[in-house]
Amino acid sequence: MQIDRERFLGAMDKQSDIGGTEGGGLHRLTLSDADRRARDWFLDQLEAEGLDTRIDEFGNMFGRRAGTEPDAEPVLVGSHLDSQPYGGIYDGALGVVAALEFVRTLNEQDIATRRPVEIVNWTNEEGSRFQPAMQGSGVWAGAHDIEQEYASTDADGNTLEEALEEIGYRGETPAEPQEAYDSYLELHIEQGPNLDEADKDVGVVTGMVAFMWGSITFRGEANHSGSTPMHHRSDALVAAADVITAIRRIPGTLGPSTVGTAGYVDVKPNSINVIPGEVTFTWGFRDPDDDVVAEAAERVLQEAEAAAKREGVDWEWEERMEASSVDFAKRTVDAVQTAADDLGYDSMQLVSGAGHDATHLASICDTAMVFSVSEDGKSHSEVEYTNPDDCYKAADTLANAALTLAEPVAE
Amino acid sequence: MQIDRERFLGAMDKQSDIGGTEGGGLHRLTLSDADRRARDWFLDQLEAEGLDTRIDEFGNMFGRRAGTEPDAEPVLVGSHLDSQPYGGIYDGALGVVAALEFVRTLNEQDIATRRPVEIVNWTNEEGSRFQPAMQGSGVWAGAHDIEQEYASTDADGNTLEEALEEIGYRGETPAEPQEAYDSYLELHIEQGPNLDEADKDVGVVTGMVAFMWGSITFRGEANHSGSTPMHHRSDALVAAADVITAIRRIPGTLGPSTVGTAGYVDVKPNSINVIPGEVTFTWGFRDPDDDVVAEAAERVLQEAEAAAKREGVDWEWEERMEASSVDFAKRTVDAVQTAADDLGYDSMQLVSGAGHDATHLASICDTAMVFSVSEDGKSHSEVEYTNPDDCYKAADTLANAALTLAEPVAE
Repeated sequence: MQIDRERFLGAMDKQSDIGGTEGGGLHRLTLSDADRRARDWFLDQLEAEGLDTRIDEFGNMFGRRAGTEPDAEPVLVGSHLDSQPYGGIYDGALGVVAALEFVRTLNEQDIATRRPVEIVNWTNEEGSRFQPAMQGSGVWAGAHDIEQEYASTDADGNTLEEALEEIGYRGETPAEPQEAYDSYLELHIEQGPNLDEADKDVGVVTGMVAFMWGSITFRGEANHSGSTPMHHRSDALVAAADVITAIRRIPGTLGPSTVGTAGYVDVKPNSINVIPGEVTFTWGFRDPDDDVVAEAAERVLQEAEAAAKREGVDWEWEERMEASSVDFAKRTVDAVQTAADDLGYDSMQLVSGAGHDATHLASICDTAMVFSVSEDGKSHSEVEYTNPDDCYKAADTLANAALTLAEPVAE
Repeated sequence: MQIDRERFLGAMDKQSDIGGTEGGGLHRLTLSDADRRARDWFLDQLEAEGLDTRIDEFGNMFGRRAGTEPDAEPVLVGSHLDSQPYGGIYDGALGVVAALEFVRTLNEQDIATRRPVEIVNWTNEEGSRFQPAMQGSGVWAGAHDIEQEYASTDADGNTLEEALEEIGYRGETPAEPQEAYDSYLELHIEQGPNLDEADKDVGVVTGMVAFMWGSITFRGEANHSGSTPMHHRSDALVAAADVITAIRRIPGTLGPSTVGTAGYVDVKPNSINVIPGEVTFTWGFRDPDDDVVAEAAERVLQEAEAAAKREGVDWEWEERMEASSVDFAKRTVDAVQTAADDLGYDSMQLVSGAGHDATHLASICDTAMVFSVSEDGKSHSEVEYTNPDDCYKAADTLANAALTLAEPVAE
């Protein structure tokens, strides 16, 4: 099956105008007016293709194309149309537009499939306006309680429930699977440099890394920076800096795929002339192997203990978030790999370092992902870029893998 | 000459009620209503002692006791009545009350001096509400332009000039010396642990440390914390942490009195899930020796250069403030030392790590300071404490040193 390159790239252009920024990016925060317009556009496309559309209570949007065996478990394909603030035009949207192009091609080429095919736009994948990220797919997959997520608020104090109603996308269908699903496929930009660095056409994602996030607070003594001798200090920032350099060092001792980051720091009183009395900072580690993440977390706490003793400060920590690694089902990964091979694309298997809606879907049905090349690995920024060839190859791979899973019926 | 211990400690109690906090500290920000009431109280005391009072254009308050030789260069003694927010009751006030007690004792014991004696309360030593610190003495000594300092604003946008007029303490006298001064003496709490640690009665301050403050900004690349491999990162926070640990290390390689502090950190975008793209932090070094401070500053910039190279980030720095060390005149230091010795107090000579009004006065006339013990070195906090004995010994030393400088006239 061959998708229509011009139609597909044209649809990518079209969607990128909705909430597009002067800098060539996308500012389409979830449930904003721009998101509403992108949803309206998507809904029009679903209806134009004659799909059976439904919107669930959490705003997740589905379009269903019947299979020759109506009760067969469907194949679900999709991603998200919301963006980061001043983010890129590919993150999420590429996967939704590729899913749409898959169905358009089925229709255009009059290809019947045994299984029904559904395409989906998940609500609030980004987690910028409302937290957590991957919220719509998480509710749908049963990872979150819908009432609790309805109550999540943005910076202006609006609840998600109000925002959904405001843009008219609080639907009627329960936000949960109404039947068993055969499989879920998602195309997404890599958001990392591995494919670009290895000069590959497309990525075959075999799973998601495990991760653990936490915060550490050191409490020392705020004192005059001039009259307090060095040996009388209990400097919370020095202890924090010690651990931050350790976070840079720890991944290199554990594995080639381990990453560790300190992203947030809060210093009190934060004055040029006062020894910092209290510092809170966050840490996070990711690795395909759960044990490696646990080891990294253990080491960072050992480093915190040692730094606290050296500096004479108290310390405590709390866990912020944790997720085990996800291994996608062999059957779905193989479908993606076979499609890439059959299309003659140079591919690479990799584990996703970022979370995606597919993380939640993997608890529902066999799941896999296609990664497109991210130039220089940049994303969550207006400079995010995937060239048209790479967009096309990833969409082509997705469509052919999905077709295999949906089981084409010979006429 | 023996001062009146009960009268002196009673006056300390009295002043500590004006702007006193429930926590036993003082919240008497410069030119606040509490400061006005403290000034009113001080003015009453000056007048009750029959002093010739004047208030200058910058709110500095003087009381003069004539000498037997009216045109002799006067001896000036004082400190400041303003406090840190929720600061202690000794910082500044102890020196003003001790100066007052000196003049009261002269009057009570009918001691004539050849030189006139002036006591002073300087405006805005603390620099909490309006910047910079030591503002009144700085204007008076010619280190700052009065118009520029009038224009300095507090957090609510009030100018210092407005605040002075609001509390009725913008005086008529030009804010500058109207004649040559013989000497300046100031009693202040140490605000450091050296006297307490060495179990001394009183400190003889021989000068002020040199200091240099600067800020460093690292600019790397904000990227996804999950999908960016460690070797693709340009993490501005890791570079900053490197330098902050170096700031902890550098003083120990330079000298026993060197101190170095990173007090302020600003991280962008400061999100748990994003590699920090930009970090600005401040550094400061102090030492009695100007060359040591210059060496420390050079080393911190070398560390920044090395950290920037390691992490692949850009960097720049700017100087925030610099001051050369001050060596007090031997004559005035000797007067303090002799007074302490004659009174049988166990004293120690030391260099002040904090700035004081005496810093500016040293450019005008021979200057010295008396330090009282600070329990555990704590200050700028409600727990700041100097026990009554130590308050008395320091005031006793100040009075006797000042008397020597003022040259008592035999009846």
